[in-house]
Parts: sequence; structure tokens; C-alpha cells
Amino acid sequence: MTYGNTFTVWRDNTSAWPAYSRHKFVQGLGDGTLPHAAFLHYLKQDYVFLIHFSRAWALAITKADTVEEMRFAAGTVNGLINGEIALHIKTCAKVGIDEATLFATQERQENLAYTRYVLDAGHSGDLLDLLAALAPCVMGYGEIGRHLAATKTSDTYAEWINTYASAEYQQVCHDVGVLIDGAVARRLGNDPTASPRWTTLQARFAMATQLEVGFWDMGLDP
Amino acid sequence: MTYGNTFTVWRDNTSAWPAYSRHKFVQGLGDGTLPHAAFLHYLKQDYVFLIHFSRAWALAITKADTVEEMRFAAGTVNGLINGEIALHIKTCAKVGIDEATLFATQERQENLAYTRYVLDAGHSGDLLDLLAALAPCVMGYGEIGRHLAATKTSDTYAEWINTYASAEYQQVCHDVGVLIDGAVARRLGNDPTASPRWTTLQARFAMATQLEVGFWDMGLDP
Amino acid sequence: MTYGNTFTVWRDNTSAWPAYSRHKFVQGLGDGTLPHAAFLHYLKQDYVFLIHFSRAWALAITKADTVEEMRFAAGTVNGLINGEIALHIKTCAKVGIDEATLFATQERQENLAYTRYVLDAGHSGDLLDLLAALAPCVMGYGEIGRHLAATKTSDTYAEWINTYASAEYQQVCHDVGVLIDGAVARRLGNDPTASPRWTTLQARFAMATQLEVGFWDMGLDP
Amino acid sequence: MTYGNTFTVWRDNTSAWPAYSRHKFVQGLGDGTLPHAAFLHYLKQDYVFLIHFSRAWALAITKADTVEEMRFAAGTVNGLINGEIALHIKTCAKVGIDEATLFATQERQENLAYTRYVLDAGHSGDLLDLLAALAPCVMGYGEIGRHLAATKTSDTYAEWINTYASAEYQQVCHDVGVLIDGAVARRLGNDPTASPRWTTLQARFAMATQLEVGFWDMGLDP
Repeated sequence: MTYGNTFTVWRDNTSAWPAYSRHKFVQGLGDGTLPHAAFLHYLKQDYVFLIHFSRAWALAITKADTVEEMRFAAGTVNGLINGEIALHIKTCAKVGIDEATLFATQERQENLAYTRYVLDAGHSGDLLDLLAALAPCVMGYGEIGRHLAATKTSDTYAEWINTYASAEYQQVCHDVGVLIDGAVARRLGNDPTASPRWTTLQARFAMATQLEVGFWDMGLDP
Repeated sequence: MTYGNTFTVWRDNTSAWPAYSRHKFVQGLGDGTLPHAAFLHYLKQDYVFLIHFSRAWALAITKADTVEEMRFAAGTVNGLINGEIALHIKTCAKVGIDEATLFATQERQENLAYTRYVLDAGHSGDLLDLLAALAPCVMGYGEIGRHLAATKTSDTYAEWINTYASAEYQQVCHDVGVLIDGAVARRLGNDPTASPRWTTLQARFAMATQLEVGFWDMGLDP
Repeated sequence: MTYGNTFTVWRDNTSAWPAYSRHKFVQGLGDGTLPHAAFLHYLKQDYVFLIHFSRAWALAITKADTVEEMRFAAGTVNGLINGEIALHIKTCAKVGIDEATLFATQERQENLAYTRYVLDAGHSGDLLDLLAALAPCVMGYGEIGRHLAATKTSDTYAEWINTYASAEYQQVCHDVGVLIDGAVARRLGNDPTASPRWTTLQARFAMATQLEVGFWDMGLDP
Repeated sequence: MTYGNTFTVWRDNTSAWPAYSRHKFVQGLGDGTLPHAAFLHYLKQDYVFLIHFSRAWALAITKADTVEEMRFAAGTVNGLINGEIALHIKTCAKVGIDEATLFATQERQENLAYTRYVLDAGHSGDLLDLLAALAPCVMGYGEIGRHLAATKTSDTYAEWINTYASAEYQQVCHDVGVLIDGAVARRLGNDPTASPRWTTLQARFAMATQLEVGFWDMGLDP
């Protein structure tokens, strides 16, 4: 299942992409060598991340040009806040982290840097700037899930892997790809790479990818 | 069913409230004297209104302080965009206005003034400023629906009246009241009317109410 | 002195432009038939307008892509707030409106509609959306001032006319034109009218022009 | 010269304050042990910092409640963009970093984290949230300048020290303190620490201080 043309070009022109999608943290999820403490630490930070990531998708609703763009973003926000965050609370409960602990998590700088960069991309630019900054997270997790499902040598983190390798999550990546391709065509026309904005958008995607590398680094350092 | 303490105080200190909730447009819905052309015109403008009103609720998500506030706002946005707007399209179809016509509606100044005022209240202030500007619409329609259901002398606009008099919509008003009371307590403490911000919030509510009067005026002028 | 290529195209494709730039209020300034009460009313509303217009230029700083764009917008904001608003207070004082009265001016719906539309154009889009909504005011006043200086048959409102016909204000219009042409080239390339965004930008300029017509209408109705 | 009551309370309740104001980077400025390469690296990052810091002050203009608040923020933005950034370019030129190099500086994560946190504080909250996040930078540099001017044992970085120890910069800190005290009184009343918002504002100040520590850490790591 493809994640769209725009994403493919952005990814293929981002030198930090392998550092993100094949990060040591990712490898540790696949071969089970990721320390449990690091995983728990990651789950707590990821809870805070999801809060601010949802805010960024909500911002997308306010910046949409068509009802279809709004509708998709609204469904995503609702899914994140009333679905994924709830699921996160459940997952964390299973490994002994209660909701009060999640709420009290001190947000780490590397975590904060990414989500606030995404929000600022949205506030300073238009919907495309926001989507270019959101894409590395959404699609990166899709790629990572799919890759780990095919190559994992341990079942320690199978549940995490299955979440992102699942048909449901892959469909989300596909749909976000359709949203991005449509939003790009609607604003930059049929030859978007010829637009002066392409360089800026590509740079936003690259910066966001770099910040994802920082997030994984942080994950390894509880 | 009560709409909360905060709303009650705001409404009772807004001199334009009766001009809004007992507007000639409202009376015309109740006694059936509202010209059909005005009603159709209103439906089209209201479609555009809902788009921007949804954007304002989406902005609320980005300005929430707690997961509960986010969750409520996200549910509301999703309800508006993936529910009420869809319903609106259906209602309009029944009276012969197709989706393409709705999309092509030229937004009237009185319509635009209210929603952009709400959005700016949110951008310039905090969540309370946004909620104070959103409240006259949400709760006003609840009051109007309830009042007309009890006093109507014609069934011409019974479907519209029943929508807002319905238990479901009354519950929305109640829940938004709970959200506002909670958001106020969380930011202004137990004696909110003693806070210097109370005057500003009251003024926002009053201005938004005045803009609702303008919206009904526009409704009578297809 | 030209106001730039972009402005010229936007203006020439806006059917409401003459209704704005040759409005009855404008004619009344030129032939002295504008009632004094309407002029005083306009001055008060214009004070409130300038506050929010300055906020829109401040928003432009946060949405600039280059230091040059920031620098220009920052100079404009500072000129508006620490220059023009101060001048406005002085002008109003001369005609007997003190600062306390200006501060207490109740903002009229037609006034509010325009500035909040501009601010929302900025928040929902990028710098170009914001500039397209700001342009009708900046350049329109330049055109009106120049036209009235050449055609006026009365000196009743000569001071107002001279302000906007002045070399200084004409230079502002010229510089904003340069800013817009540059911002357009930087984002849409050398053939901007071929970009799908052109239609949206043109529509924003047209809507803002329409709202200026509403502002003049309001000016005639103290 | 005092920086205001609010700042003093916020600072005295922030455990990371000494880690920021007495950071190894700061000590190295005072005793001349800071490697020149680190200083040059810092200057380049600080140029990018100033760009985004100016954007945050511009956001303050859009969120002000009074003309005085707007006026102060507008003067600050203009001073930063048309003054300090220009000075920065001159300073950098003297040490052999030309403007093109400054422009091409890759923004480091620790740099980005602070300014985007400040911007998001402003977008998600009101003016107070924004000011609480801006204060550690403005006033911290004032304190550091004053401290180093009194204790320095080397003149290697005397020019930097004198900039922030200067009467002019100390006045800026004083004036920002007045702005904050006024903005707090206007919104939280005469007993602001009793407001539920105090905790949130204190937390924002503390987080921003923590991010300043990260900025100095980054400065030591060219």
C-alpha cells in the first residue's frame, strides 16, 4: 500500500530518513534488545507527544480549504484523542504505568522540540507546511511497523509492532498520503516540484525527520 | 436542564439577549410567518457558518489545558463536521438546495463577522475568551429550540425547531455548560466574577450575542 | 508611482473596486458634502480599525519567510502603532474627540468584519493570504487620496486627503507593492497567475474589498 | 534596577535558574575560558534565535489587551528586528562570519525547542502565557550581563558582557518587568499568586528556563 507520491519524493530526498526509520531504538524493538526501562520511558513521553500531535491535527482543521480536508483532519483528531490516547492509557496500564503517572510526565526537550516545530510550521505557513511537518511521524511509523513485522526476530515488542503494521494503521498512512497529494495539487498544481515552495516544504519534512531522530535518541536515554 | 452557572450569569448580564433569542426571525419560525425564501437563504448561510464554527471548535482543541477539555472539543468538532454538516446537506437537499449550491454560497458580511470574531477571540486570548464567544450560538439555539417547541403555533418549521429542542441537542448545551464552568473554575478559581477577566469575558459574550442579532437580521434579508 | 504588478492585477479583477474607491463617502470627502457627524463617527471607528489592522501586520511578522519580509512588516507595525495611531489621537483631539472617547468606541459590525477577516486570512493561510486581505485597505487609501487630491472641489476634508495623497503615504503603498510582488514571486514563482492559489488570493482580495465597501456604508450611518 | 515583582517571584521559584544564569558557558564568558569556536557557534545560533524570538514578540502584539501593551511590544519587535539583529550581523562580521553564513545556519534542536515553545505558549494561551515564556531570556541575559560586568576576570568577551550590562539593556529588562506586572494585574488582579493560573504561569517560566539551560549546553558543543 502506497503512502502517496508527495511523501515518496519528500522521503527520498531526506538524507536523515534512514537514521530515523532504522534507528537503534527501532532495531531494539525488532530484535527485543531494547531495555524495558527505555520502552516504558518512551511510552510515557509518547503519551505527551500524542497530546500535542493531536493539537497539530486540530490546527489543520482550522487551515483546511475544503470540507473534505476538514472532514479528514477532524476524523483524525477524534481518532487520536478519543481513540489512540485512550488506547495508550490502556497499554500503559498493562505495563504498570497508571494515568496519574502519565499526566505527571515531565516532557523532554527532544519531545517538545518536534511537536512545537510542527505547530509552528502550521501557524507560520499554510496547510502544506503543517502537513509536511506532520508526515514524517505518521508515515514513518507506518514504514517502521511494516518493516519490523517482516523482519522481527523477537516477540518482546510484538504488540507495538502489530499496532503500526496493522491494516488499520496502514490505511491511515494511505489516507494521509491521499490527503497530502490532494492538498498539494490543490495549491501547487500538477507540477508541484517546479513551485518555489517545494524547497521549503522539503526542508520542513527534513527538519521534522531530524527531530524524530532526536526523539528516538531521547527514547534510549530514560 | 441547566446550561451551567457561567452561561446563566453571562446571559443575564447581556442586554441584547432578548433581541437575539426573541428576534423576529425566531418568531417567524414559531408562528410560520417566516417567508420560505428567507428560510432557504438562512440554510445556505448557516452551512457556511457551520464550516467556520467548526474551525473555532478545532481551535479550542489547540488551546485546551487538560485532556478532558481536548476530548470534549474533539468530539464536538467531529460531531459538527462529520455529523451536523452532513445533516445540513441532507436537510438542504430536501428543500431543493444541492451541495454544489451550498458550496457556492457567497458568505454574507453579517455571517462572516460572527465567526471571524469568535476565531479572533480564540487567537488573541485563551480558551475562556474562545468559549465566551462560542457560547451565545450553542446555548442560544438551545434556548430558542426549547422556547419554540413550547410555544409554536405552526408546524411549518417544526423540523428545525425539533432539532434544537431535542434531548440530544439539549444535552450538548448542558455539556458545553459543564465544559465552560470547569474551564472557568480551572483558570479563575472559585470566585470567577471577582477576577478582572470577568469583565472582558462578559464583554465578549455580549459582542457575540450582538453579532447573532446581526445574523438573524441578515436572515430576514435574502 | 506604481503599487506593484500583483496589486494591479488583483484590483483590475475585482468588480467591487469602483464601489469602494468611488464610494459616496469618498465623494463626500472630495466635495465637502460629507456630514461632519459622519466624519467624526468614521474617525472613531477608524481608531478601533487601526488597532486591529496593526495586529494583522504584526501577524505578518510571525508568518514571514525572510528577514527582509520581517523587517518591512515590523517597520509597518511600529509606524502604525507608535506613529499613525498617535497621529489619529491628535487629529481626533483637534475635532473634539478625546482619547477616553476613542477608547470607549463601540466597534461596529462592519468595522469588525473587515479586520477579523484579515486576521483569519492570516491564521488560516500563509503570508500571501494575509497580504491579499490587507492590500485593499493600504492601496485603496493611496488611490483614493491621490484621486481626491487631483479632483477635490472643497477643502473641508483637505487634511484627511493630504495625509493619503502625501509622498510619504504613496511611498508606503509603493513599498507594500514591492513586498507583495516579492512575496508572490518567492512562493508562486515567475508565473503566479498560473498557480492554483491565484484564484484563492484573488477571491480574498475581492472579499476584503467588499468589506471595505461595508466600512464606508457604516461611515455614512453614524 | 529591579525587573519587577512578578519576575522576581517566578525566578525565585524556579530551581533551574542557577543552572541557567551560572552555566558553564556563562562562566567561560566571564573568565575568558570559553573557546572561541564555541562563541562563534553561539553567535550563529543566536542569530537564528533572534529571528524566532522577534516572531514571538510580534505575536504578543496580536494578543495585547491595551494600546499600551501593543505599543510596548511593537517597540520591542522593531528594536529586535531593525536594531538588535542588524547589530548582530555587524558583530558577526567583525569575527569573520558574513551574513550569508548566518542565513545558512542550520538551527539546532536545543535552539528550536526554546523559541517554538515560546510561540506555542502564546498560541495556546493568552498574553501572560507568552510573557512567562519570554521572560527567562530577556531578564536572564540582564542578570547575566550585570553579574559578569561585576565579576569578570577577563576582557575576551567584554563586548558581549557590556551589551547586556549596559544601562540601555537594563532599562529594557526594567520595562519588560513593568509590562509583565501590569499585564498580570490587569488579568489576575491584586493577588495574582492566589489565582489558579499562577501555577501554570510559574510552570511555563520554569520550562522556558530549562530550555535556556539546553541552549547553553548546545553553545558548548559547536
